[in-house]
Amino acid sequence: MGDELIGRLIARLGEGSVRVGADIPAANCEDASHLTPVTPRALLLPRNTEEVSAALAICNEAGQPVVTQGGLTGLAAGAHPGEGEVALSLQRMRGIEEIDPVAGTLTALAGTPLAEVQAAAEEAGFLCGIDLGARGTATIGGNVATNAGGNQVVRYGMTRRNVLGLEAVQADGTVLTSLNKMMKNNTGYDWTQLFIGSEGTLGVVTRVVLGLHPKPVAVETALLAAPSADAALAILARLQSRFGGELLTFEAMWREFIDVAVKRIKLPAPFAESHEVVLLVELGTGDPERVTTVLGELMEEGLIVDAHLAQSGNDAARMWAYRESVYEYGQFQGNQINLDVSLPRGSIGAAVDALREVAAREWPAAVQVIFGHVADSNLHVVVGPLDGGGGFVTPEGKHTVDEGVYAVVRRFHGSISAEHGIGRLKRPYLGYSRTPAELALMHTLKKALDPKGILNPGRVLEPM
Amino acid sequence: MGDELIGRLIARLGEGSVRVGADIPAANCEDASHLTPVTPRALLLPRNTEEVSAALAICNEAGQPVVTQGGLTGLAAGAHPGEGEVALSLQRMRGIEEIDPVAGTLTALAGTPLAEVQAAAEEAGFLCGIDLGARGTATIGGNVATNAGGNQVVRYGMTRRNVLGLEAVQADGTVLTSLNKMMKNNTGYDWTQLFIGSEGTLGVVTRVVLGLHPKPVAVETALLAAPSADAALAILARLQSRFGGELLTFEAMWREFIDVAVKRIKLPAPFAESHEVVLLVELGTGDPERVTTVLGELMEEGLIVDAHLAQSGNDAARMWAYRESVYEYGQFQGNQINLDVSLPRGSIGAAVDALREVAAREWPAAVQVIFGHVADSNLHVVVGPLDGGGGFVTPEGKHTVDEGVYAVVRRFHGSISAEHGIGRLKRPYLGYSRTPAELALMHTLKKALDPKGILNPGRVLEPM
Repeated sequence: MGDELIGRLIARLGEGSVRVGADIPAANCEDASHLTPVTPRALLLPRNTEEVSAALAICNEAGQPVVTQGGLTGLAAGAHPGEGEVALSLQRMRGIEEIDPVAGTLTALAGTPLAEVQAAAEEAGFLCGIDLGARGTATIGGNVATNAGGNQVVRYGMTRRNVLGLEAVQADGTVLTSLNKMMKNNTGYDWTQLFIGSEGTLGVVTRVVLGLHPKPVAVETALLAAPSADAALAILARLQSRFGGELLTFEAMWREFIDVAVKRIKLPAPFAESHEVVLLVELGTGDPERVTTVLGELMEEGLIVDAHLAQSGNDAARMWAYRESVYEYGQFQGNQINLDVSLPRGSIGAAVDALREVAAREWPAAVQVIFGHVADSNLHVVVGPLDGGGGFVTPEGKHTVDEGVYAVVRRFHGSISAEHGIGRLKRPYLGYSRTPAELALMHTLKKALDPKGILNPGRVLEPM
Repeated sequence: MGDELIGRLIARLGEGSVRVGADIPAANCEDASHLTPVTPRALLLPRNTEEVSAALAICNEAGQPVVTQGGLTGLAAGAHPGEGEVALSLQRMRGIEEIDPVAGTLTALAGTPLAEVQAAAEEAGFLCGIDLGARGTATIGGNVATNAGGNQVVRYGMTRRNVLGLEAVQADGTVLTSLNKMMKNNTGYDWTQLFIGSEGTLGVVTRVVLGLHPKPVAVETALLAAPSADAALAILARLQSRFGGELLTFEAMWREFIDVAVKRIKLPAPFAESHEVVLLVELGTGDPERVTTVLGELMEEGLIVDAHLAQSGNDAARMWAYRESVYEYGQFQGNQINLDVSLPRGSIGAAVDALREVAAREWPAAVQVIFGHVADSNLHVVVGPLDGGGGFVTPEGKHTVDEGVYAVVRRFHGSISAEHGIGRLKRPYLGYSRTPAELALMHTLKKALDPKGILNPGRVLEPM
């Protein structure tokens, strides 16, 4: 029966679109979750929605599990192949199909990298509201599947808020088309909202319509030092009340994060002294004087204890280098653990203290840094052994770190995933953030939409 | 069996919470859809979520249809009782439970009127992003159930975008609790997003957590005359690119709408001459000079042909009076028909022309006015007989108008409901805006979540 299924897929999609064995590139055998690579039973490379539909119909009939792949930048093992799964990659379905300047919308195939979407929007005089570090590789379809967050959520929201329409294929091959370009469309259940963030377990996204934003007139970038998490939150409140929708970015980096950036990544110290929190802030006012005035007020009140306002694009890039230093940790850490959690804003300071306590007690030999999109309640925690030394290489090591961090999240009524999703890695902890009734409802929805359980089985929910 | 069900409800909720026959107030026998009032089999007045749960469990076991009622301001007959239905009113579940100033969130019971929510947010130094004409009566639960739009959607989005968490009760009485206060929470399927806009057919919303917004520093209000719909859209594009998130309101009123406001409602003419489109614009810049400069540029380019900038709150109120004159049509029209549609922004001018053609041909004796939230693609159309004269009083008359308007919407790939929802009145036209595959998926979801079909049966979808 195995060969028969592959035969049927080849008959429908063509030889070149169905790869098996050694013809499957290594890239399709893993995502960014650091799990052991697995060669899928076959790699499917459909060229259009009709082929996605045909492939799923064939797999569904055979009860063949399918893992959907975009840019493979996910950290939660959502797209990492499981044994015996067929991988369905959207990589050939790439391209901007339309920009409607009057509606302010962009329609793209799901396999289009985010950076391509951003560039097309910019060229048409607009801004794409989605931005994240993996922009060059992550695809817009993957962004939708995971409801990706990123650097501009305080201003433009999660991916969810930027999506106006979708085309998606259900497990049985049914094509759902709602390429809506209108901001308002209250016509029955909005299935697109259910699919966003469902991590490919309810259907395969094939096309995306995004609402675009006007470009900010100008961007002022500043690096601010705050004496505490509460001071950082007070700064946030003030900037929001004084600049409203002009606050574009509000990133926080705790003391240990800046220490690593300076001592290990060798960036210059941002301030003469070390501070509890360093904030990277972007405002789109086009009025640097007004920004200077408000920052001055905050300094007089002691909420900001030191500050730099970028005088040039180069200055701004140097400020962003701190935030992006986390992508350089490979230089000294082979196997770091990336966590992504949300906490109610008022608890962030206490949660950081609790995380430090856990780290000092449970993994004293490691580096633990904390940073994140604080305006969005989102903290990232990276834990890794120092200088490539031992620890955490085993599943047990990772388990200890997960348990330690998620226990803090649970204590403060946070979320075990702010923006990375559940995938396979966080599935055991989903009950920390969801009630039994919610989990039961998720299973009901999964069963209704994918009765044979072929789509990304074991991601988000236990396999059926 | 009938009495037995009522008996069980009384035993569980108490005498005072279950009304029958003449004890049911007239207000609970109709919504704002102008259908013939129907006395429900019983009116349930639960005081808390547990009672909602118990009531639904009893009704579900008996297969008893239930219609959920909030402020009863809906225009699509979603909350209008059907024969033999039990009405479940949230009117006793009223009140603000919490405002969290650090998280910037407000938690309210579903039966709280929107105006109360707005006032509480304001008192705490925030702004509620939801606003609409029926604010004094419409409840926040009803806003969620219908994904209400309104006057500030261009800035703050539909109700969907303002909701962070929900508590809801499923048909069988299961309580779903996700009172999330965090902007980012990617933990499995977001059932709250599926429930928003499902018009009470998937569950009964009992609590709502809203994300609040910083108050704009100041608001500048202007009334602008534009020579065409395309000029209005060009003005919109310019204001969005120059003021970004500071554009709060962008309402358009076509020539016939202003004519009625002046000739029938007796408001003073807004401009010396009559213009194709009059725009009501609000900006939250706190910088009237900058506003004047940009408006001046638009006048030089001929996109704005006349303009007033409000110099006082009274001035602004006089400008809003045009937009709100539509609530006064009862003075000369007994039985107007209200339609609410979306059109891709680029087609709005052509669609208005097409609507005028249809009106001239099909109902020449009527008044037809067009106005709406143009930035959000949303037009409202009101058709009514002149001076209380004949026409449209019959279902056939309404049918003719519906058919005429929705045919135009279909031609321009619009939506038959922008913000009012489907309810019962628009159900026959849902196929104009949704594909057969989408409708089949909606039925699948309904069946999975409400297998006996007791919740708001016949709203949105055909009864099962």
